[in-house]
Amino acid sequence: MMVKKLKDIVGQRWVITDRERMIDYLTDETAASVKPKPASELALVKPANSKEVSGILKLANCERIPVFPRGGGTGLCGGAIPTKDGIILSLERLKGIEIDKDNLMAIAEAGVTLKELVEKVEEQGLFFPPHPGDESAQVGGLAACNAGGSRAVKYGVMRSYVKGIEAVLPTGEVLKLGGELLKNNTGYDLMHLIIGSEGTLAVITRVILRLFPRVAASATMVIPYNIRRDAINAVPEILQSGIIPLAIEYMDRISVEVSSEHLGLEWPCKTGTAYLMIIVEGQSEEDIHSQCERISRICHRHHGLEPLIGITRKEQDKILKIRSNIYSSLKRDLADTIDIAVPPASMGKLMEAIDRVAERYGTTIPMCGHAGDGNLHPALMKDLVENKRGNLKKAKREIYQETVKLGGTMTGEHGLGRIRIPDVDIFLDKKRLELMAGIKKVFDPNGILNPGCIIKCDK
Amino acid sequence: MMVKKLKDIVGQRWVITDRERMIDYLTDETAASVKPKPASELALVKPANSKEVSGILKLANCERIPVFPRGGGTGLCGGAIPTKDGIILSLERLKGIEIDKDNLMAIAEAGVTLKELVEKVEEQGLFFPPHPGDESAQVGGLAACNAGGSRAVKYGVMRSYVKGIEAVLPTGEVLKLGGELLKNNTGYDLMHLIIGSEGTLAVITRVILRLFPRVAASATMVIPYNIRRDAINAVPEILQSGIIPLAIEYMDRISVEVSSEHLGLEWPCKTGTAYLMIIVEGQSEEDIHSQCERISRICHRHHGLEPLIGITRKEQDKILKIRSNIYSSLKRDLADTIDIAVPPASMGKLMEAIDRVAERYGTTIPMCGHAGDGNLHPALMKDLVENKRGNLKKAKREIYQETVKLGGTMTGEHGLGRIRIPDVDIFLDKKRLELMAGIKKVFDPNGILNPGCIIKCDK
Repeated sequence: MMVKKLKDIVGQRWVITDRERMIDYLTDETAASVKPKPASELALVKPANSKEVSGILKLANCERIPVFPRGGGTGLCGGAIPTKDGIILSLERLKGIEIDKDNLMAIAEAGVTLKELVEKVEEQGLFFPPHPGDESAQVGGLAACNAGGSRAVKYGVMRSYVKGIEAVLPTGEVLKLGGELLKNNTGYDLMHLIIGSEGTLAVITRVILRLFPRVAASATMVIPYNIRRDAINAVPEILQSGIIPLAIEYMDRISVEVSSEHLGLEWPCKTGTAYLMIIVEGQSEEDIHSQCERISRICHRHHGLEPLIGITRKEQDKILKIRSNIYSSLKRDLADTIDIAVPPASMGKLMEAIDRVAERYGTTIPMCGHAGDGNLHPALMKDLVENKRGNLKKAKREIYQETVKLGGTMTGEHGLGRIRIPDVDIFLDKKRLELMAGIKKVFDPNGILNPGCIIKCDK
Repeated sequence: MMVKKLKDIVGQRWVITDRERMIDYLTDETAASVKPKPASELALVKPANSKEVSGILKLANCERIPVFPRGGGTGLCGGAIPTKDGIILSLERLKGIEIDKDNLMAIAEAGVTLKELVEKVEEQGLFFPPHPGDESAQVGGLAACNAGGSRAVKYGVMRSYVKGIEAVLPTGEVLKLGGELLKNNTGYDLMHLIIGSEGTLAVITRVILRLFPRVAASATMVIPYNIRRDAINAVPEILQSGIIPLAIEYMDRISVEVSSEHLGLEWPCKTGTAYLMIIVEGQSEEDIHSQCERISRICHRHHGLEPLIGITRKEQDKILKIRSNIYSSLKRDLADTIDIAVPPASMGKLMEAIDRVAERYGTTIPMCGHAGDGNLHPALMKDLVENKRGNLKKAKREIYQETVKLGGTMTGEHGLGRIRIPDVDIFLDKKRLELMAGIKKVFDPNGILNPGCIIKCDK
C-alpha cells in the first residue's frame, strides 16, 4: 500500500524494497562493535527534487511512518541507520550545482558530494575552505551534521559556510532559509537550528555555501617530537604568534604507522613518537616560507625535532593521505571512536587523563585529533570489549567524565547520532534535553523524522 | 508588593520606581518617528549576577509580569523598549571580564561594554575582530542581537565569535551552553538559537568570545567616484582578487558631508560624489602596501578617482569617525533607518530600485552601507512623513518588496525589534512565523520575556 503510494510520488524505478539492493543503505561508517542494527521492513526511496521529498514526508506524516534521511552514509555515530521499519530517504539524485562567482557562493543540491563540490569550485578558480574528511559525504549531510574537519582552526566548521538552506519539514512544507546573504537577522535563526540537527528537524534539500578566492600557496609541515607533551605545549604558542594555520593536527606514532602500512606508503619521518602536522597558506611562496620558519622556531623551543616541510602538492597529499586514512586503517581493531572536544589549551591534560583510563583498563588508546581546535579522537580498541579488566562502556564513560571536568563537550564534529545517546546525560542536564524535545515537537509533531537520533526515542 | 519582592532579591538600592531616575532606560537609539512608547508602570531592576537574574525571572514568571532585558540601549529598532507594564532588567552591573590567553578567549559578563572589552583585549596584545558600531553597547546585547558591523566582510558577525553563553530562562533555570570550544555538536544548538533572539528566549548573563592575535598593520583607503554604479561594480572584483578586506563600505557625498560638519571635521576627499572606504590588514607594512596597490588598480579600472590612503592610526580614525557618525548626524532629520541585506553583487540594483522609490515619493534617500557584505542602510527622511505625495509606511514597504525580489532579507544586523513587525509578512511566511512562535512557547511558556519583540504580541 505504502509502497504503491511512494511509487506514485517518485516513479516505479525509485522505490526499492529488495533487501539486497538496499544493503549499502542500512549502514554507515560507525565501528562494528557499537553500530546500531537496521530494521527489517524498509523501503528505500530516491526522490528527484524537493517537491517529491515533500510528497514523501506528507505521506509518512499522515501515516506515521518513520523516515530516515540519508546522504553519503559517511557518519561515525549511526545517525543515518534506519533502526525502525519505515522509509530510507536517499538524497543522492539531487545533484544540481551552480557557482555564483560574483557573490562567491555555491548553490548545491543535497546529493552533491564533497568531491563534486570541491571540483566544481576549483574549476572556477575558487576555494571551499572546510574539508570534513571523507569526500563521498554529501553536502546536505555535511550541513545537517555541521561537519568539522582539520581546517577548522582557521576557517571554522560547516556552520560558518552555510548561508542558506532549503529544507522540507516533516509536515511537508518547504522552507527557504537565508540565501546568498552574509548577514541575516530576520527572526529566530531556524537555519542555524537545522544545521547540526542531524536530519531530525527537517530534510535539507539544498544549501548555499560561502566560497573564497583561491589561496596562492600552501605548505604542510610535520614536526616530530619524542615527548607528546612537548608537541601539545607548542600549540597555544603557535596560535598566539599571529600565524593562523589552516590545520594543526596531532598524531601518535602508532596511528601513522598503521595507516602508512595500510596504504603501502612510508611515513616520511624517521624520528619521533608524536607528531604535529601543520598546514599553512599564504599569498606567496615567501609568505609561506616565513610562516614555516616562525613555526619551526616555536616548535624547536618546545623540543621539536627536525621538521619535514612538504611544498609540492604531491608531498602534501602524501602526508594528508596518511593522516586521513588513520580511522579506516584502525577500524578493523576498533571498538569505538570518540569525538570529544575541550578548550584547545587543555588538550594535553585530556590526553593524560585518557592515558590513565587506558592504564586502568589494561588497553592502549591511540589518539589523534585536531590539536588546533581541541577536538580529540581517542580510538577505543576491541581488546576493551574482550579483556577481563573492564569494558568499553565503562572506559568510555570515564573518558567523558574527564572531558566534562575540563569544560569539554561530548562531540565536537561527529554528532550524537544514535550511539552517544546512552551517555548524553553526562553532558546535557534535564532542562536542556527538555528544550530539545520541545523544539523537536514543534518541527515534527508526530516524531517521524529520523527517530532515535539525537532525541531519545521511547517507542 | 512586587517591588518589595524584587528588593528582597537584589537589595533595596537596585530597584528603582521613580520615573525620573529611569528615563534613560525607557528608550533606545531608534529614530523618533517610529520609536515605540514606553509603558507607564515600570520597575527598573539591576541584579548583580545570574542568580539574582534567575530570582527575578522566577518571580515574574510566577506572577506573569513582562520582563524587558536591557544592555547598552544602543539598538535601532525598539527591541529594548519596555512597552508594557512590568520590569526593566538591566544587566549593567554584570561587569566581570577575564582574558584566557592560552585559549584565545574572553569570558565577559553581559554588562561589559564593547569599549571595555576592546580595551581589555588589546591590553593583552590580542584582537577582537567584529566591531558593531557604538562602543557603549554591552556584550550580552551584542550576542542577543547578533550584531554585525563593517568588519563582517573578513571576520563575520557576532555569531562567529560567540563560543559559549550563560543564559537564564524565563522559568529561572540557568543554562551554560558551549564553552571555550571551537567545535561543539552535542544536540540541537540552543546557543545559536539564543544568539539573535533579541532577549525573547532567555536572558544572556555571560558570553565566551573567540579572540585572535593582533594583526601587525592596517590601512584605510577612501576611493572617490563620480558615478555610484562604478563604485559598486568594483566590489565583486575586489572580493574575487584574493584580498579579503576587513571592510568595504559605501557612502554617498550627502552622508559624509553632513557627518563631517556635525563633527567639525573636514571630509578629506575633494573629488567624487560616491565613496568606497576599504580597510585592509596584514602581517607587515609591505603586505599592506601591496594590497592597497592591487585594490587601487581594480578601482581605477572601474573609473575610481585618486584614492586617499590613511596609514597612521590618526588618519584612519578620522575617516572611521566620519563614517561612524553618519547615523547620529542624520538622525535629527531622519524618519527611519532600514537595514536590508541582499547578495553582495546585487547591491547596485537595490540602490537603483531605492532611487526609483525616492523619486516616486519626491524625497531624497541617502544611502550608506556595508558594500562588501550586501547590507544597506537607506535613510528615510522626515519629509516622507510630512510631504503630500506619500508616506513613510508605503515607501518602506516598497523598498522591502524590492529587497525580496533580489533574494534579500529584512534586517541584516539590527534585528526585528518592535518596529519591523508590521512588515515582517513580506519576508516570513506563515509556517516560519508558526515555527518561531512554537519555539518561543517552548522557552517561555507564559510569554513574559520581552513581549512584542520579534514575536507579535496579541495582548
